[in-house]
Amino acid sequence: MSDPDVFQYCLRLGDDALVLAQRLCEWAARSPQLEEDVALMNLALDLLGQSRSLLTLAGEREGAGRDEDDLAFLRDEPDFVNAQIVELENGDFGRTMARQLLVSAYSLPLWESLTTSSDADLAGIAGKAVKEVAYHLDHARSWVVRLGDGTAESHRRMQQGLDEVWPYAFELFEVDPLVTRLVERGVAADPAALQPVWEKTVTEVLAEATLTVPDTDWRPGGGRRGTHTEAFGYLLAELQHLHRSHPGVTW
Amino acid sequence: MSDPDVFQYCLRLGDDALVLAQRLCEWAARSPQLEEDVALMNLALDLLGQSRSLLTLAGEREGAGRDEDDLAFLRDEPDFVNAQIVELENGDFGRTMARQLLVSAYSLPLWESLTTSSDADLAGIAGKAVKEVAYHLDHARSWVVRLGDGTAESHRRMQQGLDEVWPYAFELFEVDPLVTRLVERGVAADPAALQPVWEKTVTEVLAEATLTVPDTDWRPGGGRRGTHTEAFGYLLAELQHLHRSHPGVTW
Repeated sequence: MSDPDVFQYCLRLGDDALVLAQRLCEWAARSPQLEEDVALMNLALDLLGQSRSLLTLAGEREGAGRDEDDLAFLRDEPDFVNAQIVELENGDFGRTMARQLLVSAYSLPLWESLTTSSDADLAGIAGKAVKEVAYHLDHARSWVVRLGDGTAESHRRMQQGLDEVWPYAFELFEVDPLVTRLVERGVAADPAALQPVWEKTVTEVLAEATLTVPDTDWRPGGGRRGTHTEAFGYLLAELQHLHRSHPGVTW
Repeated sequence: MSDPDVFQYCLRLGDDALVLAQRLCEWAARSPQLEEDVALMNLALDLLGQSRSLLTLAGEREGAGRDEDDLAFLRDEPDFVNAQIVELENGDFGRTMARQLLVSAYSLPLWESLTTSSDADLAGIAGKAVKEVAYHLDHARSWVVRLGDGTAESHRRMQQGLDEVWPYAFELFEVDPLVTRLVERGVAADPAALQPVWEKTVTEVLAEATLTVPDTDWRPGGGRRGTHTEAFGYLLAELQHLHRSHPGVTW
């Protein structure tokens, strides 16, 4: 049965996971340590798995016959509704870990909340995702602390990476009529309940890392309405190029 | 205790896995299907895990204090002793799967044989690897058959990819004094025993895929002595760049 609101919500969650997976894959086999290569690829694989489940569910709730591959590969840029933070370029390793910390500190309470979603399929996805993102958060936390509380140079670069991604985090807690309707139906997580949890986690990690909470009121956004940063176009081209050239790999 | 022969043998096996993992990572999040993205990343992760174990063991047998990261990131091109087939560029998806078939059809009997290696640590690595490469072989086999026995265009491209990688497979069965000594000690797998198994597997898959066994006597080689193709330099630069810029990610 078609449910446009749940379709759109799953698309948002699925696009967040898909795009972040794509960014992490850019590190594959080129991180500074073999152990870290393995860790980053595992993070990317978790997120890719989440995106597959979410886009499949989105397709079912849309009821128009689109599957995960149709949704991943055959939508154009304005139809992607991920938050902009996940599409930001990796930058150096510190910036990648700052982005991962801010996103994972949001994803953990998000998925915890969604384990009791009134949409049973979404709750099922959440049950698996919550274990995965708990590890992602731990992983990011330990790197942010290690680099922030490391050498003068690692501290400087970690702070700079954090400053660059910080303003983009707040779009994750944006409320619009869709979210309001779905919170009322018990389907979606309430952003107003997630944000204090996020702030507590992030503040504690930054304190341990001897990093400063960035002081800026700039709040970019628009990802949920299909507005994206310039870097997103390149990411999407790379993601979709092969599928569009060779649909179904049947040549 | 230092054992230069086993050091060198583990280095060969470890470099084969590391370089092939690196090549497969180039597909990460850009294959034609989300499901295939996940599959290729799992293959790459298995190989990366094997390379970590093998390079760690190599470092122990060398006895000079080098760890997996030293061996992966701080050796120069002539010190890499992988067979050239694993460094060949991906080309299209068919060529990647042809390469994977030829390598996996060798790796499976290799690791099966090494489960009874007189080097207990190597036998331990083999016990895990044998399960992984059995899946890799199945995966490559099913794609080669699907594309070879698919449309006229997929058949043509699959055959072309196979023709291009085929001559490089034979280096995997090369015998030199090091291998002879280690076979006598019961450490290494005997290439003469592996090749007929490989030929049987490959011949059967190609027949099912309606592909022709390439007819050429050209036998490139030299990887085990540190001679590599032009493409390898670029791969190595990408693999090592970050580690050499930021050793230990401590900046």
